[in-house]
Amino acid sequence: MVFVLKPGVPQQKIERFIQKIESWGFQTFLSTGTEHTVICLIGNTATIDLDSVVQMNDIIEYGKRVTEPYKAVNRTVHPEDTMVNAGNVPIGNGMFQVISGPCSVESEEQIIEVAKSVKASGATMLRGGAFKPRTSPYAFMGLGKEGLQLLLAAKRETGLPIVTEVMNQTQLPLFEDIDVLQVGARNMQNFDLLREVGRYNKPVLLKRGLANTLEELLMSAEYIMSEGNSQVILCERGIRTFETSTRNTLDLSAVPLLKQKTHLPVIVDPSHAAGIRVLVAPLARAAVAVGADGLMIETHNDPAQARSDGAQSLNLAQFEVLMEDLKRRIEFEGKHIGTA
Amino acid sequence: MVFVLKPGVPQQKIERFIQKIESWGFQTFLSTGTEHTVICLIGNTATIDLDSVVQMNDIIEYGKRVTEPYKAVNRTVHPEDTMVNAGNVPIGNGMFQVISGPCSVESEEQIIEVAKSVKASGATMLRGGAFKPRTSPYAFMGLGKEGLQLLLAAKRETGLPIVTEVMNQTQLPLFEDIDVLQVGARNMQNFDLLREVGRYNKPVLLKRGLANTLEELLMSAEYIMSEGNSQVILCERGIRTFETSTRNTLDLSAVPLLKQKTHLPVIVDPSHAAGIRVLVAPLARAAVAVGADGLMIETHNDPAQARSDGAQSLNLAQFEVLMEDLKRRIEFEGKHIGTA
Amino acid sequence: MVFVLKPGVPQQKIERFIQKIESWGFQTFLSTGTEHTVICLIGNTATIDLDSVVQMNDIIEYGKRVTEPYKAVNRTVHPEDTMVNAGNVPIGNGMFQVISGPCSVESEEQIIEVAKSVKASGATMLRGGAFKPRTSPYAFMGLGKEGLQLLLAAKRETGLPIVTEVMNQTQLPLFEDIDVLQVGARNMQNFDLLREVGRYNKPVLLKRGLANTLEELLMSAEYIMSEGNSQVILCERGIRTFETSTRNTLDLSAVPLLKQKTHLPVIVDPSHAAGIRVLVAPLARAAVAVGADGLMIETHNDPAQARSDGAQSLNLAQFEVLMEDLKRRIEFEGKHIGTA
Amino acid sequence: MVFVLKPGVPQQKIERFIQKIESWGFQTFLSTGTEHTVICLIGNTATIDLDSVVQMNDIIEYGKRVTEPYKAVNRTVHPEDTMVNAGNVPIGNGMFQVISGPCSVESEEQIIEVAKSVKASGATMLRGGAFKPRTSPYAFMGLGKEGLQLLLAAKRETGLPIVTEVMNQTQLPLFEDIDVLQVGARNMQNFDLLREVGRYNKPVLLKRGLANTLEELLMSAEYIMSEGNSQVILCERGIRTFETSTRNTLDLSAVPLLKQKTHLPVIVDPSHAAGIRVLVAPLARAAVAVGADGLMIETHNDPAQARSDGAQSLNLAQFEVLMEDLKRRIEFEGKHIGTA
Repeated sequence: MVFVLKPGVPQQKIERFIQKIESWGFQTFLSTGTEHTVICLIGNTATIDLDSVVQMNDIIEYGKRVTEPYKAVNRTVHPEDTMVNAGNVPIGNGMFQVISGPCSVESEEQIIEVAKSVKASGATMLRGGAFKPRTSPYAFMGLGKEGLQLLLAAKRETGLPIVTEVMNQTQLPLFEDIDVLQVGARNMQNFDLLREVGRYNKPVLLKRGLANTLEELLMSAEYIMSEGNSQVILCERGIRTFETSTRNTLDLSAVPLLKQKTHLPVIVDPSHAAGIRVLVAPLARAAVAVGADGLMIETHNDPAQARSDGAQSLNLAQFEVLMEDLKRRIEFEGKHIGTA
Repeated sequence: MVFVLKPGVPQQKIERFIQKIESWGFQTFLSTGTEHTVICLIGNTATIDLDSVVQMNDIIEYGKRVTEPYKAVNRTVHPEDTMVNAGNVPIGNGMFQVISGPCSVESEEQIIEVAKSVKASGATMLRGGAFKPRTSPYAFMGLGKEGLQLLLAAKRETGLPIVTEVMNQTQLPLFEDIDVLQVGARNMQNFDLLREVGRYNKPVLLKRGLANTLEELLMSAEYIMSEGNSQVILCERGIRTFETSTRNTLDLSAVPLLKQKTHLPVIVDPSHAAGIRVLVAPLARAAVAVGADGLMIETHNDPAQARSDGAQSLNLAQFEVLMEDLKRRIEFEGKHIGTA
Repeated sequence: MVFVLKPGVPQQKIERFIQKIESWGFQTFLSTGTEHTVICLIGNTATIDLDSVVQMNDIIEYGKRVTEPYKAVNRTVHPEDTMVNAGNVPIGNGMFQVISGPCSVESEEQIIEVAKSVKASGATMLRGGAFKPRTSPYAFMGLGKEGLQLLLAAKRETGLPIVTEVMNQTQLPLFEDIDVLQVGARNMQNFDLLREVGRYNKPVLLKRGLANTLEELLMSAEYIMSEGNSQVILCERGIRTFETSTRNTLDLSAVPLLKQKTHLPVIVDPSHAAGIRVLVAPLARAAVAVGADGLMIETHNDPAQARSDGAQSLNLAQFEVLMEDLKRRIEFEGKHIGTA
Repeated sequence: MVFVLKPGVPQQKIERFIQKIESWGFQTFLSTGTEHTVICLIGNTATIDLDSVVQMNDIIEYGKRVTEPYKAVNRTVHPEDTMVNAGNVPIGNGMFQVISGPCSVESEEQIIEVAKSVKASGATMLRGGAFKPRTSPYAFMGLGKEGLQLLLAAKRETGLPIVTEVMNQTQLPLFEDIDVLQVGARNMQNFDLLREVGRYNKPVLLKRGLANTLEELLMSAEYIMSEGNSQVILCERGIRTFETSTRNTLDLSAVPLLKQKTHLPVIVDPSHAAGIRVLVAPLARAAVAVGADGLMIETHNDPAQARSDGAQSLNLAQFEVLMEDLKRRIEFEGKHIGTA
């Protein structure tokens, strides 16, 4: 259940109203947009008489029952697009960003070379895996803590904010200087991790699980928001289907559907979805056209030697060419890339 | 196995070479492109010594083994993009077309109103169902033969070439004046129908089955081409996955992948894939950006009253707005819409 | 909507009631079970006042609205299990049958050898492909009409009723002496074929499509029954999923679910589902235990030389061993195999 | 790469050989079966000359290259069935066990009533959720630590070993007295959790993820075994497909396939797969017949009031009836239930 308040209601009255609701046993979630202030009730609202509440509280413009199981992420509660700030780089609500970098951080030289190059080509955030989830216990798992240090070195060189994956909540203290916490596809329903990143005051990039519906993705974002962190970026990265000619099937319908249901920014990762280098550029173009707020594109200084996922990485020259093209397309869509 | 011939080989020598190959028990398929003439062998070529054949026949530039199970549709055999002519409307190889119209033809008034309107908005071909495959035996099955007559009446009024579905080979004589024979998703592996439309000298629009791989789609196109009809247009229209928020999952990766494997034009049907009106425009934009050669978009003069699939049809005003946008995007991609 | 009649109502009164209903614009379907006579109305019954009809017609015991989109196949309409007779072999309602034979009929010698052997092992019906749907236009398509003749020769030798696939309705006249018409998975939604086999007075074995839901399977059975043929046997043969270690995923839950929704017999084809010989026996055992009414098991006199699907065929000795085991299990379930 | 040793080789010689191999940079895994002692090499064995190693070390009977990416779980390495002991209850290698209990532990009364009843009916292990993964952050999450205490109280009353889910590695110290650690479907690729449970000396029940292949399941078991814990029980519980009439599609082919590839016991959870009470019994029967080593069946003293998953729980009387039936079937398969 949500209550949209009348314009200009004083803060004190709002707080008094919230206290009353909470005394009834509900949690509340306050959303202050540029045009509306909305109070969202969480709990079993079936017992509430909506009309009486509206009539008896003159600060309320109108009330509405929300039938979807997600509240805080619901666009009904927060009709304007949310803009998330990753360091000084805003994403969503007209700002389109490109996150690039290697699957795994391999050495200081490598990550700094890649960071400088992708920045020169126009990328606005740097990604790189320090902790890597790998199907086999015998595969390269990333450089771990040292990988995080190398990413921060690359940030000092280039100023690019850093996005990197956290695999479990015990690692979180190591991520203090990281700009965006990535929750990977396999952890999309690791509910304890979701709750824990929800207690940090840092953007979270939440990837859709391989076999998760859009509603489940929104519920996982709700986990994060229900702990107080509303800086969530959703990422479509392909789902598992019967088709075997691509690694996964990129579900671009997810972008407009998610943007209809939620106010959160939505980005696309064509590299992991396709798993084939030659598909990255056409899918990136399609993602811009379908309405995404950003892209995550894997690049490597030497894909043939990459320690993981080389087959889908662009080399730095290919990325430069792609970015020239994407910048024209972002402009065509009336969006902006870079700092605000 | 394919043989690429030297430029300027006289026709007579080519025919003699083909006779020789056929005398060995192989079928052949001759592809005369603007730059290369290619002869494709069909049959078990494992027994042929490729090098000897090349050495002993001086008309051959080089030979290649093709490992994919499809031959005639293979881009290796025909490196240039094929352009298919639907009436006077060319599709593929830089020509982008928009096919529009209602799910079912319902009356002369309806189909003519829709045809005039979509033509004015920029559509270049008219679609409409006369024979409708329906899951329930009790649902409206289309007007049948009368529906075809009404489509032809709409063609006389507007000049738009007609695309409509043929459900079984016994209906084919009724389709004499129809421009493009559509083979629906459920019939993608109706091999007898494929073979039969392969004997007509008419473009075939072949829709991907709900649970068919891209390789199976290409094999079905091969069925048509193996009977001599090389005017095949492939259509991605969504696949069946676990996701339930859309009717099917539109697989846009299919477009660049198909265009890498085959020379045939590839179009996209966002209406049937999504099953939700509001997704049609963003998915149509994405299809243009991903490299499709055309779109098939369902429209209706009064979607709320449509006898089938109303929930996904655009009304005529919505289609007009979308076409304005799409024309700019087709131009952005360096492609052309309309007659040549 | 269904009306269950009082016991002992004279035929004349039933006919008069049916005429009245049909005069209102509905189709009817009369089901005469051993305990109940049920009349099923097909059409938009929303306009009928159920209570008035029951009150005003004293032959009616009670009436019920059926909300599922299938009527004639619905167990509500026909609560007892249907038994279908394939020649002199009854299937369903306690009778369990095993259909066996090669993927393709290859020669008279082969099919007669296989038929004699599987009969000796305990199979009660013979299968064999004469018309074969093949993904590639260059693959072996079966012996066609000659294959049907060879199957009939095997029937003369062994007395086993014949099950074989019809690929399109123009072939039907060739199937006059065939006992059971198989509609293959790829044709499950070839609605014109369904309707046509519905006009024959012969059992139809309807295989579930690779990507079809159980409701769609029931609707396809409804197509056949709506034309008057109520001798339909449903067959689960695996669905397409992301798992690649089997050819398809056998959905054994389908058996009890279908038997809850419909009165028709349900059999299982473990050979095509798994595509791997070693899985045929365990899946056949599971199919007996889960409540199936029969099995379809591929066998070959020489699997290594089979012209199609050899990898999943049991040889004749393996089939003999399996049948010994299955006979004990069929008995354990309280069912019978063989003629009545 | 595996080396099968000659019978009767003294321990000292084995250790010396292992030291030599490890000095070459490989990990080793020693498997001492009743008939063979096998040493498994983990690492890139491409550089090893297999024949020379066999010739130069007379303790080796023969060597073999293992191409599957999993080693310790591979049946090649350990040809005999592994029997895992959950408390005094052995599972696998002829011992079949039935784990039963409620989705969530709700109160001491409830869990003790259920435990006594399922034990009386023949269940041999007790399950119950204390920490519950829930899609929604607002749903009941289980009683947590208190739930574990109540399970242990039920164990004291009945002697049944306890199986319950651990959701993240920080909870593990609370599980000291729990007999079997369950890793849930959503955590099947939570690699840090897998590694951590691999360090405990306790059986692990590893559920297949909703969209995970059998190879991925085996790789996750390999994670656990690679840390030294070889007491792993695999559990098939349904996969996500397009079919919506069941919650998931139970993949019973997985059982014989897994048992071919690995020596670990494999059980089936029909309750979570189907999500519908009426399917539990037929699927349980099929699981016994297909060759499973056990079942996990949800029961509740009052399903209509269950705080989670009531729709799929059997009540205690239904479970009693089912167990009578299952005991006859387990005997039919030549297996035993209960303590050894």
